[in-house]
Amino acid sequence: MSTHAPIVVQKFGGTSVGSVERIQAVADRVVQTREAGNDVIVVVSAMGDHTDDLLAMAQRITELPEPRELDMLLTAGERITMSLLGIALNARGCKAASYTGSQAGIITDTQHGAAKIQEIRPKRILEALEAGNVVILAGFQGLSHEYEITTLGRGGSDLTAVAMAGAVGAEVCEIYTDVDGVYTADPRVVPTARKVERISYDEMLELAAAGAKVLQPRSVEVARRMGVPLHVRTSFDEHDGTWITEGSEMEGVLISGVALDADEAKVTIDAVPDRPGMAARIFKAIAAEGINVDMIVQNVSHQGTTDMSFTAPRADLPRLQGVLDALTHEIGAERFTVDDDIAKISLVGAGMKSHPGVAADMFDVLASEAINIEMISTSPIRVSCVIRREDGERAVRAVHTRFGLDSAPG
Amino acid sequence: MSTHAPIVVQKFGGTSVGSVERIQAVADRVVQTREAGNDVIVVVSAMGDHTDDLLAMAQRITELPEPRELDMLLTAGERITMSLLGIALNARGCKAASYTGSQAGIITDTQHGAAKIQEIRPKRILEALEAGNVVILAGFQGLSHEYEITTLGRGGSDLTAVAMAGAVGAEVCEIYTDVDGVYTADPRVVPTARKVERISYDEMLELAAAGAKVLQPRSVEVARRMGVPLHVRTSFDEHDGTWITEGSEMEGVLISGVALDADEAKVTIDAVPDRPGMAARIFKAIAAEGINVDMIVQNVSHQGTTDMSFTAPRADLPRLQGVLDALTHEIGAERFTVDDDIAKISLVGAGMKSHPGVAADMFDVLASEAINIEMISTSPIRVSCVIRREDGERAVRAVHTRFGLDSAPG
Repeated sequence: MSTHAPIVVQKFGGTSVGSVERIQAVADRVVQTREAGNDVIVVVSAMGDHTDDLLAMAQRITELPEPRELDMLLTAGERITMSLLGIALNARGCKAASYTGSQAGIITDTQHGAAKIQEIRPKRILEALEAGNVVILAGFQGLSHEYEITTLGRGGSDLTAVAMAGAVGAEVCEIYTDVDGVYTADPRVVPTARKVERISYDEMLELAAAGAKVLQPRSVEVARRMGVPLHVRTSFDEHDGTWITEGSEMEGVLISGVALDADEAKVTIDAVPDRPGMAARIFKAIAAEGINVDMIVQNVSHQGTTDMSFTAPRADLPRLQGVLDALTHEIGAERFTVDDDIAKISLVGAGMKSHPGVAADMFDVLASEAINIEMISTSPIRVSCVIRREDGERAVRAVHTRFGLDSAPG
Repeated sequence: MSTHAPIVVQKFGGTSVGSVERIQAVADRVVQTREAGNDVIVVVSAMGDHTDDLLAMAQRITELPEPRELDMLLTAGERITMSLLGIALNARGCKAASYTGSQAGIITDTQHGAAKIQEIRPKRILEALEAGNVVILAGFQGLSHEYEITTLGRGGSDLTAVAMAGAVGAEVCEIYTDVDGVYTADPRVVPTARKVERISYDEMLELAAAGAKVLQPRSVEVARRMGVPLHVRTSFDEHDGTWITEGSEMEGVLISGVALDADEAKVTIDAVPDRPGMAARIFKAIAAEGINVDMIVQNVSHQGTTDMSFTAPRADLPRLQGVLDALTHEIGAERFTVDDDIAKISLVGAGMKSHPGVAADMFDVLASEAINIEMISTSPIRVSCVIRREDGERAVRAVHTRFGLDSAPG
């Protein structure tokens, strides 16, 4: 097969490679794709919960494992999956070779546990394809420019797949997962949710940032920048899933989905002195800890001070409290409070740019359900509201219905 | 600490690192060695039976896994151990960094599954020591000169430790295992067996080749060539084990031990045409398959043909039979037979060079026990006899007693 064959990148998550039997099924699918005339790069995660198991062992030793060593540990998981898949493909007469992130030329910065990809040097991968191999690639990992093994953080395997797809000019990057595509809302919460056939990078980015778990925002962002078409689908059947591409055939459609994020907490700093540079100082200190703050709301100033609220992942609360303990005192604020009993509901759709009434309609639905809105933030294609967590699922169902997203009763 | 501190290499086998708790105990011991003023390089195996578990997964996919991929798979085991130990050491305030075989500059040939070390480039390891780290090193693995991950075969972690010790000029290479040293015979077979305090490389080499499991012959050979003092001891207490060094304080002692190897089979090729070059042809074909043949006996020729017998590991029999099926026909021999119900008993001692009666004494003991000798082979410091397997343990006990190796009744 010539190297001018189209290149398809296929990424399989932990569930899809959770057992030797599932790896055999993945091998069958890869062989099919290969026999259809494509060059294939397969990106794999660790089997099932293996990464969590390794992490648990490390944490039995110490709560804060040395980051360099932890990365060395966690990268063992993909190594096992990729070589088992390599064995399965070769056993089917399909020539295949597996490569670690380091071997594949995935060069990152030096931040262990959350490294950013700086460059991809795909020479060895392209040579392996040219030699007629299916290439198997360990997701989630890279090599820093100081020659240390790094990991890309949770969801890093998607990122590996998308970035490599961009670097080798792949036709498509297929993300295989345990759901069969992107839905207008979480089907476990909204039984009438519909699968979206096609969605733009921008909309997917907003949905992912708003808590839709199917793709990490980082991967969508890289796909958009590199122009890699994404296809999110399940490894359990042959049906098409959701295509994520530039532009969108969805442009005529107002709303593409409703997302609920119950993993954030609301933090309020009371009585912050209302001086220029205060917000910058606060959020720089938080960013220096690598904590991603989401919605930021500053109330009107009264008597020279202002209250400032924002949301942040609940998982980051211990570190965040460390920062704020020092900071509150330093800037002369009164105190800070944490409310981790909230949820964020977001409505996303490229069409709302030209329909100014969408936000108002959303507030109206929530009001009619007697659900109190605590914070609001908007972008050109998204409206998000913070509400009580207990109201979350009811809010999603009501908004989903109001915006005409429910599927016709089957 | 200066890099002119003595370097101690400590190698811990699977049992010694079989659980998170055992790894913690190893960390404590390493810290002690470090605090005593040494630079320390720790070489680790995979945890417990993890290598076997990985192999079993591969074999659920296919009986003959692709060798390159299998090596990639099996090297995951040491990666997990070494990073957990790295985490445990750093958690104790002992700066430590772990390195794969590839990172440590262990360069091998390209024979996957049984690669030979060709060169060690310890630059990165020496820099890490100089920077004040305890260095942790994955045993059993290397990088071929074609940049592929390789494994060194069973017992390869000992080899890694010894070769690295030689390359960095270590004072000693300590091999921690689940027994506390080298014994005059297997204590499970001979309850009166004694621990040997000091033994020469040559004697240890013969004992290891004769089936004593405590060290692989390859490691002893490398230690001898590079002049690395070995210290075999247990990780379960602080006592000295057995020192293996050049020369020997054992020279006055006649016999250092008795070994029993029940893992070999006897193969006989009947009626081989008695022409020059025939033996070379047979054993070249077998060597090409990477099978180590041990004792070779050729009977006197009669009527232009001769019978040829040899022993080989029982694990290699399937491959060996493949070679012999073709070869027997090719060379015009009558047939071959396999007897896998044998054992090999060996008596080893540097002192026997100057005591010609040792072999005769050994045959005499066996005769007095009514044990039939089927094959004999000798070296300057070893006598080996092939006998029925069922007679093996009885033979070892009788020989052990006859040569005065029994400990005084306690």
